[in-house]
Amino acid sequence: MSTATYAESGVFVCFEGGEGSGKSTQSQRLADWLEQEGYVALLTFEPGDTEVGRKLRTIVLSPETGEISDRTEALLYAADKSEHVDTVVQPALDRGEVVITDRYVDSMLAYQGAGRALDLDEVEQVARWATHDLRPHLTVVLDLEPEHGLGRFEERDRIEGESLEFHQRVREGFLRMAKADPDHYLVLDARADVDEITAQVSDAVRPLLAQAVRR
Amino acid sequence: MSTATYAESGVFVCFEGGEGSGKSTQSQRLADWLEQEGYVALLTFEPGDTEVGRKLRTIVLSPETGEISDRTEALLYAADKSEHVDTVVQPALDRGEVVITDRYVDSMLAYQGAGRALDLDEVEQVARWATHDLRPHLTVVLDLEPEHGLGRFEERDRIEGESLEFHQRVREGFLRMAKADPDHYLVLDARADVDEITAQVSDAVRPLLAQAVRR
Repeated sequence: MSTATYAESGVFVCFEGGEGSGKSTQSQRLADWLEQEGYVALLTFEPGDTEVGRKLRTIVLSPETGEISDRTEALLYAADKSEHVDTVVQPALDRGEVVITDRYVDSMLAYQGAGRALDLDEVEQVARWATHDLRPHLTVVLDLEPEHGLGRFEERDRIEGESLEFHQRVREGFLRMAKADPDHYLVLDARADVDEITAQVSDAVRPLLAQAVRR
Repeated sequence: MSTATYAESGVFVCFEGGEGSGKSTQSQRLADWLEQEGYVALLTFEPGDTEVGRKLRTIVLSPETGEISDRTEALLYAADKSEHVDTVVQPALDRGEVVITDRYVDSMLAYQGAGRALDLDEVEQVARWATHDLRPHLTVVLDLEPEHGLGRFEERDRIEGESLEFHQRVREGFLRMAKADPDHYLVLDARADVDEITAQVSDAVRPLLAQAVRR
């Protein structure tokens, strides 16, 4: 259906991991460091960082949505990704910016592929088509045992409220993807010192910045 | 990704065609005839005949949605179809009913494949995956020149408001699909007498009813 594409302008960094693994904290810290270094960082997330995406985020995450079929859920995530890449990620890369996204295709493969009972190859075909198979130059997996990341049960959204076994399959999904492509992945223990994680991420991003514009 | 599947219980009939071609009238007339004959008919439509589908219909059809990417649009239609097949169409077929849908996969192939600038094979893969490649036993194409079917410009939705050339590509898309699989298609002139169309549709459906339950 498509072949892996890495942008030749700009830098595309993705944070992945389970609930409560510190993705948003570390995304923000990377953006702050890049801005200090004189680069233009665009901090974004999935699902929901476009106009149509916000509506889709409500559908997929709200417990009020109730039962939807696994394929429907996967296709809603794919639609969110499609709009996100076409209107946010790719335009920023074209401008030479560093795009930092909190979740991307791997989340769909881990949650809808490994987590749900869908054929992983088929889910991947849909996700790759949705995103023109645009891949991050670096994906940082913040690895955490699900029992340490999930918040209080009453406060969980539709996905967080899934079983511990579901979240374990998700975790294993992330680790499997990282292992298969070590050149583009950095796996870090999410329970390590927060400054130490930030330093390791910065070290991994620094060599990629030749493609990024300075202010 | 999948192979064409025809339900072995129940009968699946689909009406396709451009705007204003009389699909909803003829769907209703077929349902009425079936009920008179003692069969159980389920009249449904795409997009929008599920709870999540109603939300997606608003997104894809409302002019207020504005620009969304072609892939996003296709994936939203696919999500609607997925939910429709899993929660409405397949359960009714399993009960042995005659399911009559106003639009199905062919509309996605015609509007998002032929109408938009997307690769038709790729759109078809997504649509087939969404629907487990479940095919209608009979698709009735109510063929009409677009200039005769489109309503007043001010009253058109997001799709209807596309150019005449777009709607011409859509029409040609339907005719091409019908030509490629004559055993499962019936193409009728939408401007023929309404009773005559109903009679021709009934004649085409009658031989399929051995698979349908009676009340």
